[in-house]
Amino acid sequence: MTRSAPVSPVARQVTCTAPVNIAVVKYWGKRDAKLILPSNSSLSVTLSQDDLHSRTTISLAPTHVTDRMWLNGSECSVPANARLVNCLTAARRHREALEKANPELPRWSTWGIHIGSENNFPTAAGLASSASGYACLVFTLAQVLELPLTGPELSRYARLGSGSACRSIMGGFVAWNMGTRADGTDSQAYQVAPETHWPELEALILVVNDAKKGTSSTVGMQTTVATSALAAHRFAHVVPERMRAMETAIADRDFAQFAELTMQDSNQFHAICLDTYPPIFYMNDTSKAVVHLVTAINRLMPTIQAAYTFDAGPNAVIYAPRDHMTRLLQLFTYFFPAPTDVSTRDFFNDPYARVPEGVVLGRDFPAEYQAVRDTFAVSTPGAVKRIIHTRVGDGPRVLSSSEASVLNAQGLPKSLK
Amino acid sequence: MTRSAPVSPVARQVTCTAPVNIAVVKYWGKRDAKLILPSNSSLSVTLSQDDLHSRTTISLAPTHVTDRMWLNGSECSVPANARLVNCLTAARRHREALEKANPELPRWSTWGIHIGSENNFPTAAGLASSASGYACLVFTLAQVLELPLTGPELSRYARLGSGSACRSIMGGFVAWNMGTRADGTDSQAYQVAPETHWPELEALILVVNDAKKGTSSTVGMQTTVATSALAAHRFAHVVPERMRAMETAIADRDFAQFAELTMQDSNQFHAICLDTYPPIFYMNDTSKAVVHLVTAINRLMPTIQAAYTFDAGPNAVIYAPRDHMTRLLQLFTYFFPAPTDVSTRDFFNDPYARVPEGVVLGRDFPAEYQAVRDTFAVSTPGAVKRIIHTRVGDGPRVLSSSEASVLNAQGLPKSLK
Repeated sequence: MTRSAPVSPVARQVTCTAPVNIAVVKYWGKRDAKLILPSNSSLSVTLSQDDLHSRTTISLAPTHVTDRMWLNGSECSVPANARLVNCLTAARRHREALEKANPELPRWSTWGIHIGSENNFPTAAGLASSASGYACLVFTLAQVLELPLTGPELSRYARLGSGSACRSIMGGFVAWNMGTRADGTDSQAYQVAPETHWPELEALILVVNDAKKGTSSTVGMQTTVATSALAAHRFAHVVPERMRAMETAIADRDFAQFAELTMQDSNQFHAICLDTYPPIFYMNDTSKAVVHLVTAINRLMPTIQAAYTFDAGPNAVIYAPRDHMTRLLQLFTYFFPAPTDVSTRDFFNDPYARVPEGVVLGRDFPAEYQAVRDTFAVSTPGAVKRIIHTRVGDGPRVLSSSEASVLNAQGLPKSLK
Repeated sequence: MTRSAPVSPVARQVTCTAPVNIAVVKYWGKRDAKLILPSNSSLSVTLSQDDLHSRTTISLAPTHVTDRMWLNGSECSVPANARLVNCLTAARRHREALEKANPELPRWSTWGIHIGSENNFPTAAGLASSASGYACLVFTLAQVLELPLTGPELSRYARLGSGSACRSIMGGFVAWNMGTRADGTDSQAYQVAPETHWPELEALILVVNDAKKGTSSTVGMQTTVATSALAAHRFAHVVPERMRAMETAIADRDFAQFAELTMQDSNQFHAICLDTYPPIFYMNDTSKAVVHLVTAINRLMPTIQAAYTFDAGPNAVIYAPRDHMTRLLQLFTYFFPAPTDVSTRDFFNDPYARVPEGVVLGRDFPAEYQAVRDTFAVSTPGAVKRIIHTRVGDGPRVLSSSEASVLNAQGLPKSLK
């Protein structure tokens, strides 16, 4: 273990959390890879930090001789991570400009930065942590450097780390406007509606077992833009119309419309992946079984019950209104039983108390969906590894408790791996 | 069993076979469902009848009181099958016009028709038999009614039975021009090149095990045209260019170009299926494993080794030049072992003698592809149920031997089920 010099008494330290977001109009394709400028606008739901978050502590001190970072307790090279460097540089330059304009300000832009970051969800869950991670990084940087930034301005810094991170800077329903300027200054997020606008919207994340590691999204996007004959049509003609329709559905809290657009856009994102050469597949047979099941219950019932969406992996995210959650949980745990070596509690706990007394998940089939019971096969136990229940939530939070800090008073990880 | 009246001594009987075809530019979408007019042109390779064919006997007699048909030994209702009726009506009207123009001709248009048809491949193989079946039906009708039709003209009659059947009317490389007229008179097939132009082109059909019955192609196409935002772009902008490029690749016997276009077009067909709402999936995890494997060997070797293509189901068809077949057979049988209860001979026989003395399929990995050996997992035995080896072949044939006839001298099936 390397030891830093003793920390300066003037050191500053801030800890924040930032949420995960799951897009309902998908981002896939960059028009500028370095500035991370997208080929189309996108829109997402920010999920509650009570369930899933990244937590980042930044320690700023004149005695930190170099910038250092620890992710989940392991040190990673800062200079080797160009995107991280871009975020740090942008924030420092901003601070430097403030200091030049006002010479009374402390020269924090010259101090070293130590970053400790952790996710409260296991990497094995297959959830992308880059969105919450980079949102948390730039949000914490803005706090520690006292940068006077609006949400949209801050989202541009997050975008430099990971495109979808710009949408985790705000809570509720967040759009990322693709922008048109070459320097990216208009490619930023804005809040379509806060989480309080539609608090009934909940989500289930079905973590799907998958043997193979899929194509990285950075490489995948580039190949799609270069080779898919359909992608350009999506960018220019489909998404602009769909963004408008999605904003209207959210404004109206129209779940049926929201759900249809969400499913269609997930399908189309995977369609352009398949039209890529060589083709990219993220959904597997379990993902497809989820699609077929959701399609069947939506057909069966008088109103749309749920919407599926899939990011760059086989995991399904199911959006549904609170009122549908009990039966949906029964449905999914019935058709996708827990792995044989995992307890029900580890497979699914019930943070929002949606399972009524007396109902046994995995055994009791929901009465409302009885008609689909015999039309689907029950999957092998463990095809879905875990079910996470969450809901729409707020934007990044500053934590005041020193217990929440990832770094100790010397700016080093509390727990080193 | 119903008995027909004794057959007339003037009865006519003809037996023909017709081939299967597998498209390399896919047909998916109709602009007119009744006339079976497609939304885009398509192009296919006719596969050898020595391996796969439909065989049809038509018995024409004044004593046949109604039209009857037996498919694989079981009688099916003629009036209930509108497309079959359309084919019979078109052929009879054509004959009637000839008889009106020349009163000396026998009045065959007034006689009853008995049809016996069989496929030499099991239904369980999951191969569409409608293309070879309808091609064989209209080809045999033209023979028995002595209709003076060119191939393209005859292909229009086949199209009334099943769109892709129009491409099984000729051998070699066959395009179906979508046409623009409302009555469909210019929506017909033409031969791009005969089988003798590129006889080295061979094919492996990997029959993939699949639990679920997929969406019927008739229903699927309609849903795609109605709901996919990408399909119209494919029809109007992608396919016309791809048809020209494919014809050039075939003219030049340029396998690399042929293969890339074939794979890209298969990918895009499945992409628009996925962009359909609700989405249609035909490929399963085994199909995807085939795609990844072909992609890997094409990357590994200095020249493109093989092209995959998938129709409306999980089966893979692999096109490759004769010279690559030994190592491809070794590759596929290694990664996709025979079902445990099926003998190697039933899993794959070697009609073209491509497996050299001493090579054991499923055990001996091809030396050329050694680098990919450990980068893929061997599938569960039986994920691929059967491998059929075939090659480019000729168009429908008239059989002269009475032994080949599906019907007996009375116009009834030799073997009734």
